[in-house]
Amino acid sequence: MPSAGILIIGNEILSGKVTDSNSPFLCRELRRLGVDVDRILTIPDDVDLIAREVRTLSDAYDFVFTSGGIGPTHDDLTMDGVAAAFGRKVVRNESIVARMERVQNGPANESQVKMAMIPDGAQLIDAGDLWFPVVVVENVHVFPGIPELLCKKFMSIRDRFRGVPFLLKRVYVRRRESDIAESLHELLGEFPELMLGSYPKIGEEAFHVLLTLESRDAGYLQKALDSLLSRLPDDAVHKVE
Amino acid sequence: MPSAGILIIGNEILSGKVTDSNSPFLCRELRRLGVDVDRILTIPDDVDLIAREVRTLSDAYDFVFTSGGIGPTHDDLTMDGVAAAFGRKVVRNESIVARMERVQNGPANESQVKMAMIPDGAQLIDAGDLWFPVVVVENVHVFPGIPELLCKKFMSIRDRFRGVPFLLKRVYVRRRESDIAESLHELLGEFPELMLGSYPKIGEEAFHVLLTLESRDAGYLQKALDSLLSRLPDDAVHKVE
Repeated sequence: MPSAGILIIGNEILSGKVTDSNSPFLCRELRRLGVDVDRILTIPDDVDLIAREVRTLSDAYDFVFTSGGIGPTHDDLTMDGVAAAFGRKVVRNESIVARMERVQNGPANESQVKMAMIPDGAQLIDAGDLWFPVVVVENVHVFPGIPELLCKKFMSIRDRFRGVPFLLKRVYVRRRESDIAESLHELLGEFPELMLGSYPKIGEEAFHVLLTLESRDAGYLQKALDSLLSRLPDDAVHKVE
Repeated sequence: MPSAGILIIGNEILSGKVTDSNSPFLCRELRRLGVDVDRILTIPDDVDLIAREVRTLSDAYDFVFTSGGIGPTHDDLTMDGVAAAFGRKVVRNESIVARMERVQNGPANESQVKMAMIPDGAQLIDAGDLWFPVVVVENVHVFPGIPELLCKKFMSIRDRFRGVPFLLKRVYVRRRESDIAESLHELLGEFPELMLGSYPKIGEEAFHVLLTLESRDAGYLQKALDSLLSRLPDDAVHKVE
């Protein structure tokens, strides 16, 4: 299965001024596509740090997604960092400058030209109706930090990342987690490949724990679900979905 | 100033089933306290990985905060990972077992006893009215993944992490980011210690960019704000707060 690492770049996340909604979005979408996200890392706007972490993630995972740091201001350093990660220069891309000037029907100013400085040899992928393409260097996909734009861009190229999706069953349980932990342990003994999650909920009336069962194999998942239900007392199960 | 790293542990975050609200909370609170968060890392429930990353973060930062993986089920591996990070054993803590049994007025079952297995020599800090204390090993503070509990526990011991807080000014600007990027660049030339953030907003009518100016020095911050305002056209400033 394809694996992925996500790199969130921006002081505004670390200082608590902005809540990162991009990594939750990417995790949900990649899961649907069957891609395993193995790591999310959030770091400050620092060229050397971006370069080092991009390179490490690129070596470790099939796909890397970065978010943030590609605007026109002083703290937008992602393109420099990605270029440095692969020992490339940053060069002015004339096709991006031309798109900019076409959209605004006039010459690009200095700050706009900065946004057209991308790593040498980067691949450009058109993203729907957005004038700025997705920049890809090796296996690293460079996305903007603005959630609306990241979402649009990702959705327009998502078919490039298709694996075998997981299937999911949810079981809502009217017991405390410590009362069913043994049963879960035994279930995993019988179904070692099952991905089993157990999430206590505070403030819910109808159930205390949400169990999630996941597998890419529908038959295996159904057998594991049947086995789980047989291990729990009848009145312990609030709902299966 | 004290620095911090945050380690979020849990497959449920990476698979997109649960959105991490703990790192945004910790970032906001630590910022208020004057602690610099330098890194947030999210990883799966894997003992070896937890051990390696805890050790790396512990060596790099003054404080480390972990979230998740301390319940009674099969995927709760944080205590084992933290112990392994420092070459310690996991041992049964009788004071935690005793608290458990007092709360429920009866003997702890096997799964509950698992929750009392903590790294040898860990420090226990009472957390307000919660029966389970905060477990601290070296500079690593082990918090639960359930947001309500993490919040309660953190707030009850937050005074341990006090540094010199940042002061913040916000300037809402009626210009595109690329139109003011030059002014921001010049401002940073004059005030190199200023922490300056620039955040374009899509879908706002009254302004296009939110600028944040931060410093721990009130006089320096005010001078930088005055300088910024003198660089922007009068009609460009929507609001200062």
